[in-house]
Amino acid sequence: MPSDVRDLLAVQPGHRVKLSDHPADATPGFDGKKRQAVQEVADIGRELADLQERLYAAASEGDRRRVVLVLQGMDTSGKGGTVKHVISHFNPAGCRIRAFKAPTDEEKRQHFLWRVDRALPQSGEIGIFDRSHYEDVLVVRVHDLVPEAVWSRRYEQINAWERILAEDGVTWVKVFLHISRDEQRERLLARLDRPDKHWKFSPNDVRERELWPDYRKAYTAVLERCSTEAAPWYLVPADRKWYRNWAVSQLLLAHLRDLDPRYPPGAYDPAEARAALLRA
Amino acid sequence: MPSDVRDLLAVQPGHRVKLSDHPADATPGFDGKKRQAVQEVADIGRELADLQERLYAAASEGDRRRVVLVLQGMDTSGKGGTVKHVISHFNPAGCRIRAFKAPTDEEKRQHFLWRVDRALPQSGEIGIFDRSHYEDVLVVRVHDLVPEAVWSRRYEQINAWERILAEDGVTWVKVFLHISRDEQRERLLARLDRPDKHWKFSPNDVRERELWPDYRKAYTAVLERCSTEAAPWYLVPADRKWYRNWAVSQLLLAHLRDLDPRYPPGAYDPAEARAALLRA
Repeated sequence: MPSDVRDLLAVQPGHRVKLSDHPADATPGFDGKKRQAVQEVADIGRELADLQERLYAAASEGDRRRVVLVLQGMDTSGKGGTVKHVISHFNPAGCRIRAFKAPTDEEKRQHFLWRVDRALPQSGEIGIFDRSHYEDVLVVRVHDLVPEAVWSRRYEQINAWERILAEDGVTWVKVFLHISRDEQRERLLARLDRPDKHWKFSPNDVRERELWPDYRKAYTAVLERCSTEAAPWYLVPADRKWYRNWAVSQLLLAHLRDLDPRYPPGAYDPAEARAALLRA
Repeated sequence: MPSDVRDLLAVQPGHRVKLSDHPADATPGFDGKKRQAVQEVADIGRELADLQERLYAAASEGDRRRVVLVLQGMDTSGKGGTVKHVISHFNPAGCRIRAFKAPTDEEKRQHFLWRVDRALPQSGEIGIFDRSHYEDVLVVRVHDLVPEAVWSRRYEQINAWERILAEDGVTWVKVFLHISRDEQRERLLARLDRPDKHWKFSPNDVRERELWPDYRKAYTAVLERCSTEAAPWYLVPADRKWYRNWAVSQLLLAHLRDLDPRYPPGAYDPAEARAALLRA
């Protein structure tokens, strides 16, 4: 692991982003083979699990800190696979997983951040979002689902809201899973190759794919305008699934190490408790 | 695996239950060693994952079926450990995990089934409940948190509510993790032995332990009155963690096999979709 993989992957606040400068099959911070990456991830699993338990334990004594992993990326970029991988490190009971689909009628009658707010992890938990409030400046922008005057204000609204939460103890880990157009085609074709994967495919996926340049522009705007000190974006090349898993695990590890949560001492005398227990 | 582990573990509707007839260290349906049990569970992991994916896929075409695993048991009986074990088989994105603690003020202002209703899995999902609405006839009964006239009606209310949901496609898998009083002492002492486990212990655990006979009576009432055709209880001896994991995995497998969900065919022509994709 490099001294800090975050430095390699973070989008610098206020800087321009040119996605074509970031090959989707690159492996920043890792120059070994797939097998080594898988091994490295397995090796840090215990530390990740331990850090999560400490975060959870600390909350029982009032530590308000929590983590939100936000996963965004084009169809087939591996959001679901990343959720599955990440959760394998953790005790799922301390995680709050939410996949955001098209908003329901009830959700549409509320502010766009409302449903995300309700899905936030509590103190001590790790939230894992498959899509998020960013859809409201991605699919919504690409398809003109609300007027530009509305969506164009959302970047600043998101920044303000994320900062409020950061100040309350939320650590944001926002990951853009960056895949190439060719890789997407391969992954969609693979779904058509297997009848048991047909349900994962929809002709609409092809229509969305035709909007690739528009989505790229919308993602670029997100990365340029919403990578902040309080809530940075990480650009993770995701054509190689093993690198994607390695990178997201390292990002979580780096953030959790920084948090360094501590097991709280019990608010009781262990010797007395033991004596009481032996009598009970 | 026996022909059907459900027959061995199910509490027969309307029958009396004597917990002392069920040794907590027994291993009904399994007569091998720990290592074999662990291997058997690993062997069925793929089938469990496949069945879950099919359940999830079927929901995309209108299949309303879903599964709720309810875990109840005394402190340290292994509810949390079982959640962790079960989820390891599945894609967590298709699971809805909820641990029920003491109700919040908001929840207390609603009917006792209200918060459970809100936590139910959607079609295609597997819900995993660490404690449940049964707390409202367990801790509530033992501590007289509501008048007897109120809690005594809840058994029938629960049966009626569970039946409504069963008729809407919910498969209930209700598991009572049955541990012995001695085993509980060992597990509580183990928490006191390690400073990094002190946060999991509370002097209140000892006071609850002193109410063991009352809890046993309350659990017996639950098993006798709320094991129904629509939603049977399974009594799982849980002193041995490996047997507990084996038994719960087998119960889920048996139910999911019965459901036998199918991958829906796509509502499109795959050849046409492929051609469109190659052009896009």
